[in-house]
Amino acid sequence: MGTQAQSSEPVGSVGIVVPETFRFEEAFALQCGETLDGFELVYETYGELNARRSNAVLICHALSGNHHAAGFHAESDTKPGWWDTCIGPGKAVDTDRFHVVALNNLGGCHGSTGPASSNTATGKPFGADFPIVTAEDWVRSQALLADHLGIERFAAVVGGSLGGMQAMQWAIDFPDRVRAAVLIACAAKLSAQNIAFNEIARQAIMSDPEYKSGNYRSTDTNPDQGLGLARMIGHVTYLSHDGMGQKFGRELKFGDMSRARDVEFQVESYLRYQGQSFSRRFDANTYLLMTRALDFFDPAARFDDDLVAALREATAGFLVLSFTSDWRFAPARSKEIVDALIAARKNVVSAVIESEHGHDSFLMPLPRYVEVFRTYMNRLADEAEGDVAPETPGAA
Amino acid sequence: MGTQAQSSEPVGSVGIVVPETFRFEEAFALQCGETLDGFELVYETYGELNARRSNAVLICHALSGNHHAAGFHAESDTKPGWWDTCIGPGKAVDTDRFHVVALNNLGGCHGSTGPASSNTATGKPFGADFPIVTAEDWVRSQALLADHLGIERFAAVVGGSLGGMQAMQWAIDFPDRVRAAVLIACAAKLSAQNIAFNEIARQAIMSDPEYKSGNYRSTDTNPDQGLGLARMIGHVTYLSHDGMGQKFGRELKFGDMSRARDVEFQVESYLRYQGQSFSRRFDANTYLLMTRALDFFDPAARFDDDLVAALREATAGFLVLSFTSDWRFAPARSKEIVDALIAARKNVVSAVIESEHGHDSFLMPLPRYVEVFRTYMNRLADEAEGDVAPETPGAA
Repeated sequence: MGTQAQSSEPVGSVGIVVPETFRFEEAFALQCGETLDGFELVYETYGELNARRSNAVLICHALSGNHHAAGFHAESDTKPGWWDTCIGPGKAVDTDRFHVVALNNLGGCHGSTGPASSNTATGKPFGADFPIVTAEDWVRSQALLADHLGIERFAAVVGGSLGGMQAMQWAIDFPDRVRAAVLIACAAKLSAQNIAFNEIARQAIMSDPEYKSGNYRSTDTNPDQGLGLARMIGHVTYLSHDGMGQKFGRELKFGDMSRARDVEFQVESYLRYQGQSFSRRFDANTYLLMTRALDFFDPAARFDDDLVAALREATAGFLVLSFTSDWRFAPARSKEIVDALIAARKNVVSAVIESEHGHDSFLMPLPRYVEVFRTYMNRLADEAEGDVAPETPGAA
Repeated sequence: MGTQAQSSEPVGSVGIVVPETFRFEEAFALQCGETLDGFELVYETYGELNARRSNAVLICHALSGNHHAAGFHAESDTKPGWWDTCIGPGKAVDTDRFHVVALNNLGGCHGSTGPASSNTATGKPFGADFPIVTAEDWVRSQALLADHLGIERFAAVVGGSLGGMQAMQWAIDFPDRVRAAVLIACAAKLSAQNIAFNEIARQAIMSDPEYKSGNYRSTDTNPDQGLGLARMIGHVTYLSHDGMGQKFGRELKFGDMSRARDVEFQVESYLRYQGQSFSRRFDANTYLLMTRALDFFDPAARFDDDLVAALREATAGFLVLSFTSDWRFAPARSKEIVDALIAARKNVVSAVIESEHGHDSFLMPLPRYVEVFRTYMNRLADEAEGDVAPETPGAA
């Protein structure tokens, strides 16, 4: 089952990994009412599934993430997977102890069925016609992947940001299949401000003439400018005010400030570079779809806006982490989740981590963050190996 | 001199006002090294200049402001000037006591010389060729307007946001001509985050194909989409997280959330409306120019980044106000100014006002804000009328 290969990677790396593809051949009804004629999910695994099949961990990705969460695809790769800081031998999610599954979500642009895939009804790419996908749809598709992999119950479902929201949805929708949910830098639903930033990003994409109502692939164009702008907006909001100040301050890239001539601040060229590089590697329709899924996430909605009621049937233990300088998903938003979990008499561990790196903190090797995360995961690994009696669900 | 006319406006309004134009016919050298063959500034005045010419107050506008700060242009107007909450008979800036001067800045798009004006060298609109204008340039052009109006010394130079920055520049550059500087919701220089948001706004405008390298007027087009996006970005950042939450929450405009179909949140349509309406009334090149002036503002730069040194020669008294939920120009940024003023042994009054309205608070009739502002201004009016000895400059 493992896709891990031998390699001479540095200590702490899962080494060279090879993505695999899960093909679901049956009709898959989405929350929006539309139905896909099956789908494919691309995924990677790291570490061995144990004989009791009790040590599997699902990694859910955020807005711009994918299945390549750790390790390298080739010896020549200079950058590892997006969460290599936390996944690997001896790391917070220890691949010597866990069998880690990471996938590209339905609607994604890294190999799973999404807007760039061919629509069997038309023979052309779905483009903007790809149906709306929600966190609930994702969780159901991930459960089908788990069936395929022979994983009845995950030791943990883990994610940051939109990934944490999926972990929460797992605990609510499949209480018997999640032993622990790790929710990092997330919220029980988006605020008006969050929706507003997402909407501006969408407008930037859709108002780019190269977007062509979402059919840019058919016309061999790409809304580079709009997608770049969307990324720039996101990027600024994922960093903190003070963090940006420390990184860039008012440093100039070039120009003569005293004469206000040809001045370019470092932060400007950095942002433009981020925008340009993102629009080369990400799909605009997927970006629209992911931000919509973020906006729509609201598991309490079908419980009369009562988050405690939404969480009542969950049996998982919860780890809830947030970061002091994260203003998109602030500690106050995590506290709302923790308070609801306590009121619902769940087993919850939570910590607010000091950090100047804003929302992006969850991707960084911050010592206290990694230590709290690893300690929690190691206890789960002990339980999975049967050394320790599992937590009593429902103990607050 | 007054442009105020009689009218049956409600109590507290300056009534119907008529803009006037000041024409400066000589060459005006800008900080960037370029020279304008003269310029025009459109302005309004409210209240009578007293015999001693000691009661004049200059109102400096912010990014999207103009000369129409109070009153109405016609009986049929439904909206008064942009700061009518604070300017009028009995208001914080009491037009029964002060002679108020409000202008449209050089580079503006409401009648003063700017990118839409004809370039005498080419006979065409300047467009993107309009030279870079800085806060220092603005202050010098405003001093020429003051000369024209026979105002040797202002009782106060007053502004919020970018307007407050001009008030600070006045106190530094013309110490003998400013009795008090009122700095509301501003900063001694922009942070990297602020510059980043401005740069994204500029990119949104410049990447709009209708921008046409700034020559959209010659081609009879307008970068509506880009300017609208720029405004949306600005608007979200001028509001607070909690304020937006209270105003919009997750209320839907239409759609079926349970099926994730055709959903539109209220905040989305509100923002789009704001963007569209702004792009009809504002000029894209002026927006670029104003955000550049904001980025470049840094009066300490020519004093080896020492703000205390920059303020040392100022003789004005200072009122410095900020708002708790303002995250673009946070209270911490005002505190930097206050600390420098204290270290420079200036006479400074400061207050942090509780508000949920973010940066836009400075435009709102918040009781404590208006009371602090009015009390300070009334003392200045007393001094201007000679009832009270002026403050001793330099007393800390």
